Amino acid sequence: LTAHAVKHGCAGVLMLPPFYYKDVSEEGLYRCFSEVVQRVGDTRLKIYLYHIPPVAIVGITPKLVERLLKAYPGAIAGMKDSSGDWNNTKTFLDAFAKDAFDVFVGSESFLLANMRNGGAGTISATANVNPRAIRELYEKCGGVCVKRRRNQKALGTSASTPADLEALQARLNVVREVFSNKKFPSMIAALKQAIAIYTNDQEWTRVRPPLIELTTEQAELLAAELRAIGFRWQQ
Amino acid sequence: LTAHAVKHGCAGVLMLPPFYYKDVSEEGLYRCFSEVVQRVGDTRLKIYLYHIPPVAIVGITPKLVERLLKAYPGAIAGMKDSSGDWNNTKTFLDAFAKDAFDVFVGSESFLLANMRNGGAGTISATANVNPRAIRELYEKCGGVCVKRRRNQKALGTSASTPADLEALQARLNVVREVFSNKKFPSMIAALKQAIAIYTNDQEWTRVRPPLIELTTEQAELLAAELRAIGFRWQQ
Repeated sequence: LTAHAVKHGCAGVLMLPPFYYKDVSEEGLYRCFSEVVQRVGDTRLKIYLYHIPPVAIVGITPKLVERLLKAYPGAIAGMKDSSGDWNNTKTFLDAFAKDAFDVFVGSESFLLANMRNGGAGTISATANVNPRAIRELYEKCGGVCVKRRRNQKALGTSASTPADLEALQARLNVVREVFSNKKFPSMIAALKQAIAIYTNDQEWTRVRPPLIELTTEQAELLAAELRAIGFRWQQ
Repeated sequence: LTAHAVKHGCAGVLMLPPFYYKDVSEEGLYRCFSEVVQRVGDTRLKIYLYHIPPVAIVGITPKLVERLLKAYPGAIAGMKDSSGDWNNTKTFLDAFAKDAFDVFVGSESFLLANMRNGGAGTISATANVNPRAIRELYEKCGGVCVKRRRNQKALGTSASTPADLEALQARLNVVREVFSNKKFPSMIAALKQAIAIYTNDQEWTRVRPPLIELTTEQAELLAAELRAIGFRWQQ
């Protein structure tokens, strides 16, 4: 599948560790990724390691990244950190951002912190409903955040003050929290429900099993909360 | 894949729940299995549900089995319980063994208990190295164990006394414990190492990543322990 993606010009491949067996060794995980790089055998391959321990249980450790980067500096392009643990993200940034290793946070709630510490951006499910505001913070960070990963220093002053950026971040957090409500069966189902509301198309509520759609009551709660925070639907 | 297996005459399909997302609802899991049954659409389909919470995290609950059996009594043929928790196996036996629902234990250490309580047998990794002894206990159980699952009563007395059966079970446990040693990276790697020893073919030590083979020291430990218990290699 990865070889296919590369041949079709995909810019990158977000790759989970093999997550069936738990308690596997770092050596075993190293061999897995190593085998993919070698068998794809294409210098265009860019792998982004996906660290999402709440789901995959099996995670990506700094030591594993260190070994992979050493062996395959061209192919190991970065990671997505969906641990939800800023300290973990910071550890990877401090260790690898200087080596053109792109660290994306899995939640835009950490976007400003990530950009301030040399991160590359965010890959977030919520970006499906709130892309404009997330993009706005990302772009305004560009002028003031230290971009260590490309060995560039801050570009200097910009129109945005730290307080401006923090206000944008706070606003993103408010929206994210509505969708993260534990009363919903999953964030994915809540996001699809929101799209159904704003496009006025119930087909959007459908999710594939084992996920389930929101109940009528949950859908009403979501609509009410989005109204309460003054959420604006802007694609 | 399941449709393909059925068309080729496979007697049954051992099926994991979808195990990527954790904390999924019973309703979501029900819809998954239901969709498989409906889309395969073949009365020859026999599904054995695979409950292995240490690995898949997502498990099979009695309530889920109850719903599936009610909707698809022909297709839901049984389960493999690899929880390692006899109380859990017993719960399923008590609830469903009378309905021709075959309960297999994932470890032969529970084989005698399973057979005495209406179970169908065992599906065990260790059967790759110790098939004869496991089969012997299984067959000797046939005469004395209550076979509730086919609505049959015990066939009466057999040559095996309860003490005979318990001795066979105890012997199986000794072998199983050698391979379960936490000093080995995985039971699968230890089993392959044993086959390599007895066939004198090092090719057998290979495992696919993320699993790793035993170190030389671990392989020597395994060989010594198998000698110590007087393990006999009989295919």
